[in-house]
Amino acid sequence: MDRKIQIAVCGYGNLGKGVESEIAKNPDMELAVIFTRRKPAESLQTKSNAPVAHIGEALEWKDNVDVMILCGGSKSDLPEQGPLFAKDFNTVDSFDTHAKIPEYYAAVDDAAKAGNNVSIISIGWDPGLFSLIKLYGGSIIPEGKTYAFWGKGVSLGHSEAIRTIEGVEDAVQYTIPVASAMERVRSGENPELTTREKHERVCYVVASQDADKDIIEKKIKTMPDYFADYDTTVHFVSHEELKANHAKAMHGGNVIHTGITGTGNKHVIEFSLHLDSNPEFTSSVLIAYARAAYRLSAAGEYGARTILDISPKLLAAEEPEELRRKLL
Amino acid sequence: MDRKIQIAVCGYGNLGKGVESEIAKNPDMELAVIFTRRKPAESLQTKSNAPVAHIGEALEWKDNVDVMILCGGSKSDLPEQGPLFAKDFNTVDSFDTHAKIPEYYAAVDDAAKAGNNVSIISIGWDPGLFSLIKLYGGSIIPEGKTYAFWGKGVSLGHSEAIRTIEGVEDAVQYTIPVASAMERVRSGENPELTTREKHERVCYVVASQDADKDIIEKKIKTMPDYFADYDTTVHFVSHEELKANHAKAMHGGNVIHTGITGTGNKHVIEFSLHLDSNPEFTSSVLIAYARAAYRLSAAGEYGARTILDISPKLLAAEEPEELRRKLL
Repeated sequence: MDRKIQIAVCGYGNLGKGVESEIAKNPDMELAVIFTRRKPAESLQTKSNAPVAHIGEALEWKDNVDVMILCGGSKSDLPEQGPLFAKDFNTVDSFDTHAKIPEYYAAVDDAAKAGNNVSIISIGWDPGLFSLIKLYGGSIIPEGKTYAFWGKGVSLGHSEAIRTIEGVEDAVQYTIPVASAMERVRSGENPELTTREKHERVCYVVASQDADKDIIEKKIKTMPDYFADYDTTVHFVSHEELKANHAKAMHGGNVIHTGITGTGNKHVIEFSLHLDSNPEFTSSVLIAYARAAYRLSAAGEYGARTILDISPKLLAAEEPEELRRKLL
Repeated sequence: MDRKIQIAVCGYGNLGKGVESEIAKNPDMELAVIFTRRKPAESLQTKSNAPVAHIGEALEWKDNVDVMILCGGSKSDLPEQGPLFAKDFNTVDSFDTHAKIPEYYAAVDDAAKAGNNVSIISIGWDPGLFSLIKLYGGSIIPEGKTYAFWGKGVSLGHSEAIRTIEGVEDAVQYTIPVASAMERVRSGENPELTTREKHERVCYVVASQDADKDIIEKKIKTMPDYFADYDTTVHFVSHEELKANHAKAMHGGNVIHTGITGTGNKHVIEFSLHLDSNPEFTSSVLIAYARAAYRLSAAGEYGARTILDISPKLLAAEEPEELRRKLL
């Protein structure tokens, strides 16, 4: 095997730790460095023996890194880091603020083009693999409709929203798809489903000893955007129970495309994910697309890309000839 | 909209009829001509008002066709037609003799390169969409295993095999995945499954009046390759019942990839198809990849391609900017 693809991780939160643990399963890749905001960088405790450096010194690593995986958050890290690092590195990120993707794409595209780099944005499962299935479904059966369901899974945003309520010490929120709604979709009925009909929300809340649980429950259930439009159930539990039964960052979901051909023949295309660890899975998708970024850059391409642009074969460690033999 | 993509259909069997019926759902494409072996070509009864021409006159249409969709069979039509037409046309086909795909790829690649054309081979759902999911699954979660199940669906090959038995007037064979085996796979157990454990076969047979049904049943159940390795059930029915209840060319299946990240977190990636009409669905996949062949050729590419090579965005009628806005 040739020299391994040298990967940098930028940010050592859940995603960065996921890249660190999963990269070893890819024999053609190697973790070159972990960049952190911490000062001094050496104070960061990591699991691997990869070098650690301060994010402000990233440029010094330019010649030793093939692809930088940006593992920061979409709210404040990536809007800044995406365009910044695309100037100097091939990058992959999981920017997932759906409404702002066109604007983010444009900013990263400008930077990547200026730096002659490839930057693959918004990688993961939604946006990401779910987007792919929507594209395949809609392109193959145009006379049809695509539905997405999320869960059962932990929504970090909703869990955090509960924690902002006075008297709440901790909380975990599950998004759960309504099974009967999924069955209606699979039947090819093409239903119009309201927000409430598609998902329910179940909350496990640790209240402080003197808190009024009725008030907390009411505040959760009436919270606009987050809960008001859903059937929401609230369970009060102890810290111990929350830790014992609700600590896994599980998630997943289903994309279902149904449509018609000929004189009314129904077709159902369905894709589902059941993930014990949402961040470790997302990290694994990022790693596969880092391989693609490396290959595209090596082939002389540059600019921003999304999952919709990337040839499937670019994700696989195996050679195209072996893939054809094994998979077709 | 610019000039529509001009599509030729080569072969007017189930697949060719499927392309004819579904192409109208793609506003950017148009059926330019149907090629047939029939003489005179005009005697072919078609549903659309597309021109009909003899397959021997295909070259005369070269300037009016952007992509030819080869709708013949894998056994004898495509091995000849694939390399032949790749010299003069961009082509898409559904060659599905898995073991011979590398050899077929090489022959078509030579011809397509000589003619400066793009030929996308082995398109459909297996090989095809199932191959894609295997690639995505294995590349994203390398510490895992992929399983494929087929059905419930009608196997034309197995139905035909039954019809060769003396005393059988007609037959339909269903391949049915074993639900408990699929559940074991989804659980992440990574089971080793025998042929018998994965699928069962159920046959509906019309016997001639004087036939010995016991002998027919025994001959079916012991037929090597086709039935001997499976739990097979045989039902004798009338011509009327066969026509009333078993006339639909339904099919489908599931690809399930399960694997592990981190310290034992399980992940299940599953893709399933439920198709009322196997040929109409396959035709619909062929049409979407004809759009990709057209675009690749227009961009100056040439040679053989498979589903593993094709960027997802090339399948969609919409522009990339709209796709990013809608799907990401």
